[in-house]
Amino acid sequence: MLSPQDIDELATFALELADAAAAVTLPHFRSGLAVDHKEGKHAFDPVTAADRDGEEAIRKIIAQRYPDHGILGEEHGHEAGRSGLTWVLDPIDGTRSFISGVPLWGTLIALNDGERPVIGVMDQPYIGERFVGRPGGSELIGPMGTLPLKTSACTKLEEALIGNTDPAMFHLDDEKAAFREISSKARLRRFGGDCYFYCLLAAGTLDLVIESGLQPYDIQALIPVIENAGGIVTSWSGGDAQEGGQVVAAANYELHEAALKILGQAAND
Amino acid sequence: MLSPQDIDELATFALELADAAAAVTLPHFRSGLAVDHKEGKHAFDPVTAADRDGEEAIRKIIAQRYPDHGILGEEHGHEAGRSGLTWVLDPIDGTRSFISGVPLWGTLIALNDGERPVIGVMDQPYIGERFVGRPGGSELIGPMGTLPLKTSACTKLEEALIGNTDPAMFHLDDEKAAFREISSKARLRRFGGDCYFYCLLAAGTLDLVIESGLQPYDIQALIPVIENAGGIVTSWSGGDAQEGGQVVAAANYELHEAALKILGQAAND
Repeated sequence: MLSPQDIDELATFALELADAAAAVTLPHFRSGLAVDHKEGKHAFDPVTAADRDGEEAIRKIIAQRYPDHGILGEEHGHEAGRSGLTWVLDPIDGTRSFISGVPLWGTLIALNDGERPVIGVMDQPYIGERFVGRPGGSELIGPMGTLPLKTSACTKLEEALIGNTDPAMFHLDDEKAAFREISSKARLRRFGGDCYFYCLLAAGTLDLVIESGLQPYDIQALIPVIENAGGIVTSWSGGDAQEGGQVVAAANYELHEAALKILGQAAND
Repeated sequence: MLSPQDIDELATFALELADAAAAVTLPHFRSGLAVDHKEGKHAFDPVTAADRDGEEAIRKIIAQRYPDHGILGEEHGHEAGRSGLTWVLDPIDGTRSFISGVPLWGTLIALNDGERPVIGVMDQPYIGERFVGRPGGSELIGPMGTLPLKTSACTKLEEALIGNTDPAMFHLDDEKAAFREISSKARLRRFGGDCYFYCLLAAGTLDLVIESGLQPYDIQALIPVIENAGGIVTSWSGGDAQEGGQVVAAANYELHEAALKILGQAAND
């Protein structure tokens, strides 16, 4: 069990990790960097040198400061720790945005206490925005100063603004049908967000984010940001979202319930 | 015919207009502002008080400084001038991004010399980015300083990164089919960009932007930004794009030609 003092210390450390990642990733953004392709994935899934080097930079700092902490990262796999605490990392979530020059990618850093992610950071260094979630509250440190994050009061699908990275992420027919049904009911739908959309949900400007095929490192950092801003993140059946897969994030319980009524029919967990 | 001195003066003035618009629009961004709906449009087309007030602020400054210049704006229509010069304005292009909290909207300011837009500015005040195009070159004034803009050398559809605001903008079956065909050939496709994607094309990180249903004030400011960075913007048949409608922007002539081969079949001009 982490004390409030532990949380303070570790949240501050998470921001140091974000600084270290930004020093590696940002110089490559819009630099015309050559893009590698991951093996064994069906779709276009670029990984840049910035992604790999960013994770290495973070891992090195964790190993020095907290050698008994575990690490789970997209690029370099899982190193179990002895403390029960695990850092869950993705230096560049939204690699398609990154290579397209769109500043909606982010560095994701979560601290998992063995049961769930308790501290989460999404850092967008080009814009200079940092979304931070931890017990007691979430905040945005950005161009307008530091602002508390609070999800919206929108409880109806018909009034909801929904976000999704790309509808092509839905491969199964029942997933496509469920997303189409929610899309058609919603007031407005935006594509192209990756981690950034979950943070806008925490900020109260989007009401619902619906995705599929996520990895643990795609979602764990975002859970504390959303939950400590008043929102809820689960699988499409209402289960734990920390392992990824089909994920729905909602501004509040009423909207979440309305979404699950449709998404539950396509849930695979 | 505008002299180089005229261009300098008017380009500097265009940036003053962008400053004035930002002072009005930015305080409303992510402020939880109530959103109005335009009458007589079939889809969701929000217009905020920020959009209307931003245009009023710009119009006032133009009337004071250049009372004989014409003005064409989204919100307050057309005022013909006596100089042959017309400012073509959209204080918030990307209102859906604006109300969703996504910082990919922009203030568009063009100066049209009676034949074509010769100066163009896209200003994104939240990120602090300003894309400026004028005879002799285009540049980005942003978080990394001032950088020259240059379109990519990508000449093949199969290697192209393409951008589009929302595929729902294609209402006709042959438009949908043409967009699907290009999408399926391209290396990567991104949605959600509005004016921002045209500027990324000028910056060389996107190669092709394909849209339909544009208004003159949606595209005129972007034409000088793209053309003076080495790109090309036309209608789907290869004609003049300044009146909007079906628009294709490409990084270079080879890629433009490859796109027109497919888009031309669905061209309505």
